[in-house]
Amino acid sequence: MPDTATLLINCPDARGIVAAVSEFLYKNDANIVHNDQHLDAERGLFFTRIEWELSGFKLSLEEFPPAFRGIAERFEMQWRVERSTSRPRIAIFVSKYDHCLADLLYRWNCGELRGDVAVVIGNHPDGEKLARFYGVPFHCIPVAVATKEAAEASQLALLVREKIDLVVLARYMQILSPRFVAAYPQRIINVHHSFLPAFIGAKPYHQAFERGVKLIGATSHYVTTELDEGPIIEQTTERISHRDQLADLLQKGRELEKEVLTRALRWHVESRILVYGKKTVIFD
Amino acid sequence: MPDTATLLINCPDARGIVAAVSEFLYKNDANIVHNDQHLDAERGLFFTRIEWELSGFKLSLEEFPPAFRGIAERFEMQWRVERSTSRPRIAIFVSKYDHCLADLLYRWNCGELRGDVAVVIGNHPDGEKLARFYGVPFHCIPVAVATKEAAEASQLALLVREKIDLVVLARYMQILSPRFVAAYPQRIINVHHSFLPAFIGAKPYHQAFERGVKLIGATSHYVTTELDEGPIIEQTTERISHRDQLADLLQKGRELEKEVLTRALRWHVESRILVYGKKTVIFD
Amino acid sequence: MPDTATLLINCPDARGIVAAVSEFLYKNDANIVHNDQHLDAERGLFFTRIEWELSGFKLSLEEFPPAFRGIAERFEMQWRVERSTSRPRIAIFVSKYDHCLADLLYRWNCGELRGDVAVVIGNHPDGEKLARFYGVPFHCIPVAVATKEAAEASQLALLVREKIDLVVLARYMQILSPRFVAAYPQRIINVHHSFLPAFIGAKPYHQAFERGVKLIGATSHYVTTELDEGPIIEQTTERISHRDQLADLLQKGRELEKEVLTRALRWHVESRILVYGKKTVIFD
Amino acid sequence: MPDTATLLINCPDARGIVAAVSEFLYKNDANIVHNDQHLDAERGLFFTRIEWELSGFKLSLEEFPPAFRGIAERFEMQWRVERSTSRPRIAIFVSKYDHCLADLLYRWNCGELRGDVAVVIGNHPDGEKLARFYGVPFHCIPVAVATKEAAEASQLALLVREKIDLVVLARYMQILSPRFVAAYPQRIINVHHSFLPAFIGAKPYHQAFERGVKLIGATSHYVTTELDEGPIIEQTTERISHRDQLADLLQKGRELEKEVLTRALRWHVESRILVYGKKTVIFD
Repeated sequence: MPDTATLLINCPDARGIVAAVSEFLYKNDANIVHNDQHLDAERGLFFTRIEWELSGFKLSLEEFPPAFRGIAERFEMQWRVERSTSRPRIAIFVSKYDHCLADLLYRWNCGELRGDVAVVIGNHPDGEKLARFYGVPFHCIPVAVATKEAAEASQLALLVREKIDLVVLARYMQILSPRFVAAYPQRIINVHHSFLPAFIGAKPYHQAFERGVKLIGATSHYVTTELDEGPIIEQTTERISHRDQLADLLQKGRELEKEVLTRALRWHVESRILVYGKKTVIFD
Repeated sequence: MPDTATLLINCPDARGIVAAVSEFLYKNDANIVHNDQHLDAERGLFFTRIEWELSGFKLSLEEFPPAFRGIAERFEMQWRVERSTSRPRIAIFVSKYDHCLADLLYRWNCGELRGDVAVVIGNHPDGEKLARFYGVPFHCIPVAVATKEAAEASQLALLVREKIDLVVLARYMQILSPRFVAAYPQRIINVHHSFLPAFIGAKPYHQAFERGVKLIGATSHYVTTELDEGPIIEQTTERISHRDQLADLLQKGRELEKEVLTRALRWHVESRILVYGKKTVIFD
Repeated sequence: MPDTATLLINCPDARGIVAAVSEFLYKNDANIVHNDQHLDAERGLFFTRIEWELSGFKLSLEEFPPAFRGIAERFEMQWRVERSTSRPRIAIFVSKYDHCLADLLYRWNCGELRGDVAVVIGNHPDGEKLARFYGVPFHCIPVAVATKEAAEASQLALLVREKIDLVVLARYMQILSPRFVAAYPQRIINVHHSFLPAFIGAKPYHQAFERGVKLIGATSHYVTTELDEGPIIEQTTERISHRDQLADLLQKGRELEKEVLTRALRWHVESRILVYGKKTVIFD
Repeated sequence: MPDTATLLINCPDARGIVAAVSEFLYKNDANIVHNDQHLDAERGLFFTRIEWELSGFKLSLEEFPPAFRGIAERFEMQWRVERSTSRPRIAIFVSKYDHCLADLLYRWNCGELRGDVAVVIGNHPDGEKLARFYGVPFHCIPVAVATKEAAEASQLALLVREKIDLVVLARYMQILSPRFVAAYPQRIINVHHSFLPAFIGAKPYHQAFERGVKLIGATSHYVTTELDEGPIIEQTTERISHRDQLADLLQKGRELEKEVLTRALRWHVESRILVYGKKTVIFD
């Protein structure tokens, strides 16, 4: 995989953005390998993702921001540039269900996920064996009503110490406080075991079973302070029938959860996601 | 297609049901072609669907009920028997959107649907041309707030006159009164343009677009007096992306609506659906 | 829908293509609404599709080619520019099965397809009633082994007379001669009722049934002189089970055929398809 | 999960089969929990799967065969009865790719698969670490052209010693000899990384990439002496686009392989599969 840089831009729509950006890159000898753009015509918003090879590019990534500042200010851009060789440091939070943890660790270990799983944090000890097998430090930080604030303080201290860029809630069955969420804006990915906005809250498979739906689903999303209301990254569904009892829904659901969480994590670390309002743009 | 009878049974679970029914059919020289059974272990309910060839069967369908009564009473069965050559009389209700109407009429005309489309009823005149092309009488019965009761009375009179067995709401944008619903229990099929229970009520595609979901859906269900709460027959979903604007959702949704409504209608007329509580068993 | 122009480019990869094109458009006051790019790194090929609003654009589409020529020659581009308000003239070929025909005519009539269905040509008279209902001229040109050459000559004369841009084979059960194919390169779309390259040739559903596959499929592709070997535009599959008999495969397959053929036609008329070798790029 | 018995029957269709079997079970106080039946009308074959609770059943599973013999002979049945608490002994064969191995071991360990993974056999040492983590003995038996016969002899000896009931080829990149296949008829499950019968043989993802298909697939099947021609158990497909390079196909394909192999294994150990000719009946 070549060494590339990816520029993500979100700004009000205007004439000349594409020309200005591509002219800038061309002058600095960029060889563009991907270039995708989206326009939300209703809201007048422009989004783009451009990836170019760093071999031969005239600017270092330290020189990029000052050089690009003029264009960014002219078009009122929110922007960031990421290097494909950078490896975000990831913390996985887990409770007792370990299917998402096992899946993520396997994928990370075999090189499917750009990034480093730096730590696994459980409020139960169940994930330790798997974490150890893959050589990842495991910390058990129990959470009870009375100790929640202290537990979150410990978690946050650990995240800072480990220089974590991204928190993945892999069926972590605790609700994070607004303070925690505010510390990692658009940096916490959760998997909810339903097709949101259906079956918000607790025990969605039980709710689905009671309602008699013919499909179940799962959703990965960024965590915000409103429960299950964050920007959706990915969703999928699977057919069920009257033959499927609750245990079957749980089993089929595990596949969906792994699928949407893996994709969300992969797209995040590959800088493919732009959030605006409650929505996401996913560049493919 | 051979001339067959289908027996649908719904009763409390007990030993000996299968033996009693199959012994009864065997003694009367039935050649069973399909036999499917479902047990809701949690609620202790037994469901079955048995289909056999009428060629060689000793009983006429008039003789069947008295002959079967002993078994039915012994096991407290709710049951019915249907003949594959019977053709339920169908009324299609429509407003302005005619994609479901066009789809159902085409399928019916080419023989895909067992049954006779006896009448199309619109609260707008838009469906008339299509109905005529397929040789089906069209009645325009406008519905306004002040005239709703009278309009429903006209509709019901028409359904009685046409000996309608099944009402299909093919994107009919009016809510039926409890009185209307009570006249055709488990005989009115509606299509809702969302993945229920997400986006109940008006303008579900708009709601979906605002929420930023990654899949849209459609649901067919029997109509009950609670809006969008009837037993679900079929659901499906389709992937969307940030590129899809509201018009794209509407277009993709039309495909889903046709799909779930066709399946519901087909399964109903083929006697494949058993309703219990808010749920359905679909025998395949 | 705004009046836009779409530029499709296919050329050897090189630095500066994006900058040159976007600079050119910017100088002529284009407001870009879509911009997508693909790089086949292995073969060193660059593909792009750019769409911009014509309101305010300085060049007329007649002035565009000479103005753009310099850039096109510098990068050895194959390119074309299409206007969103242009309406390709479409001929639909059909035999006896009319489900694709009915589906396409309905969609075209309700405005889902950009373009004009100018003529329906059948080798049997079956499609005439539907064509008439939608106000499209129907021509029956029978094809037998002895008359094939003459029949094709009549068809081609009709296509020329009607100024046809695109030929759609909607389950047309005849193989076109190389001469016919050569007259409309990348302008003839066929639907094959299998998941190519599985079950090439005649009676693919029968082949699928015999083999005992668990999914059936359909494929839309451009027609080349090699049977079922043209560049694939779209494919889809549907689950089947041991319960599905041959008639069920045929019925389920009809849905797939309509789906892939509609998409292929829509993408073609919206200038979303670039062909290279045996492959297609589909810009979404 | 209750202790149940499952009876699988495959015989020529005849009147009275259902009555005879259900009468037999009723007389012996069986409480039937599942009962499914399939008729291949074309070939005149009858298939059924009946599951009943053993609590209260009068016969032990040793007493069952002599008691059932009369019915079985009368209808020329091929039949077998399995106990839900029996745990088939499974051998997993693996080469270098370990995604299917990791997936199966995780599922087995968490109780998703009825059965005991008794041994993992690799022709390379790569799978050892995973096998050890899950506490399963690993044997490395290298295979080269000159040593193939001896290697298979070692494998077969190991299978006999371990009393293996089922062999799972989890991306095992060797072709088994007819002698090996004959030793485990309908007891060897393979995963092929394409949608059979498309792309038979080596490097199917490369073939798919070259052909420009829009979907890739995977197939699980019983192994017979004809390569990739055994009875298909399960298939699935996944959408790809021109953006997907070969590495993406490989990655997406791994998900499909895990999915179809897991399902095949689960259905086999739950006695849900009946093979006839080149086809399978999958009772759900």
